[in-house]
Amino acid sequence: MRNILIKIEYDGTEYHGWQVQPNGITIQALLQDRLSQILQEPITVVGSGRTDAGVHAWCQVANFHTASLLPCRNIQKAMNSLLPGDISLTHVREAPMEFHARYSAKSKVYRYQLYNSTSKPALLRRYVWHIRRTLDITSMNDAVHHLVGTYDYSSFCGSGDHCRTHERTVVTASFRKEEGGPLVFFTIEANGFLRHMVRNIVGTAVEVGMGMLAPEEIPVIRDKKDRKAAGPTAPPQGLFLEEVTY
Amino acid sequence: MRNILIKIEYDGTEYHGWQVQPNGITIQALLQDRLSQILQEPITVVGSGRTDAGVHAWCQVANFHTASLLPCRNIQKAMNSLLPGDISLTHVREAPMEFHARYSAKSKVYRYQLYNSTSKPALLRRYVWHIRRTLDITSMNDAVHHLVGTYDYSSFCGSGDHCRTHERTVVTASFRKEEGGPLVFFTIEANGFLRHMVRNIVGTAVEVGMGMLAPEEIPVIRDKKDRKAAGPTAPPQGLFLEEVTY
Repeated sequence: MRNILIKIEYDGTEYHGWQVQPNGITIQALLQDRLSQILQEPITVVGSGRTDAGVHAWCQVANFHTASLLPCRNIQKAMNSLLPGDISLTHVREAPMEFHARYSAKSKVYRYQLYNSTSKPALLRRYVWHIRRTLDITSMNDAVHHLVGTYDYSSFCGSGDHCRTHERTVVTASFRKEEGGPLVFFTIEANGFLRHMVRNIVGTAVEVGMGMLAPEEIPVIRDKKDRKAAGPTAPPQGLFLEEVTY
Repeated sequence: MRNILIKIEYDGTEYHGWQVQPNGITIQALLQDRLSQILQEPITVVGSGRTDAGVHAWCQVANFHTASLLPCRNIQKAMNSLLPGDISLTHVREAPMEFHARYSAKSKVYRYQLYNSTSKPALLRRYVWHIRRTLDITSMNDAVHHLVGTYDYSSFCGSGDHCRTHERTVVTASFRKEEGGPLVFFTIEANGFLRHMVRNIVGTAVEVGMGMLAPEEIPVIRDKKDRKAAGPTAPPQGLFLEEVTY
């Protein structure tokens, strides 16, 4: 038996997220289907975690077990010709049998892209959240600074989350404005994320950036451990899974 | 009568290019249709030049005449809500009556994006030409250096071009590799472009980058003034009209 590690880049626009679902095409389902076809045996793919419908990945990590002897480079080549254009296997390699894409993950990095301009984005529309009102990036950074550390993030946890504990450690969280351009990048690294956590943090930070909420209210919201205390969920198309560290 | 200057950003993926055509939806046709609807009179839009099917624009410039008194900001707002998501009016302003988007243009800047990697681009697939073989960027720059100046560019002119003269002045033409990433950007500025000129130059430069052609052969190809002497036409999706100067 071999344990194979794969890295996957995908454009989530057309998919119902990562996780296999009874209705709608998902990334995991497509990968399992194509791998089973190539390796001639039923394959189960374990991802580092789910991404929601419409969310993208520069680098999702997953693994699967197979009895096939097909070399990694052949698996990659066959997969990339069978997969649609918006999913790509960027790496395929042997991993130790104990490697588990979810349980072995130490941290994950997500990026969220805002397009802060009065003019409508045409070329980037599939990959940004368009905000017309000028955002105060300094206030937004003051706000998310209160979310760096080890806390219970229940206030930023979407309904339908099945995690046993809502405590996570956020290592970095910051906004950076593109020099002379409309893009604003939010980068967040944590040892794990609750459902919709990044999008709920971004939605709340945008309220701060618009002056609807003061940065000092963020620790109060955080400590309420109540989803209703925080701001709205930012739309999925601005979110990218950037990196999973092991 | 007013003369209105507009700047348009568009994702060319779904369109049959800029210019009105009997079959297929074009950017110019959509703009004319929506403007006529908003301004309640038939509107003819003059662009700085055509872009081919599948080619994008960060900043196409056009103008039109109207008797309507509707303020520019209202035109912009109404247009952006009537246009599909992949076309955006980024600027709308009054221009002197003598302004003509095509005849007044002094120069144009195009960018072409290559994705030079063995792995398939999923997120950027609509905006790059994927080249697996490692390109020698230095040779490619040596090659296009021979195309800077005032020359007859017939060797790089696609069939169906109706220009009276094939002489143009290229001010800059260079390739730049993204630091630590797979992207290669080609930027070219000229006082005008022949049909497919940028894509034919890129197609030929890529042959140089792959070692199929020496940089010194470029002036020979150029001086033949024969399309058959140059390399293939690069695909449209990597090309962006970046700027038009007046």
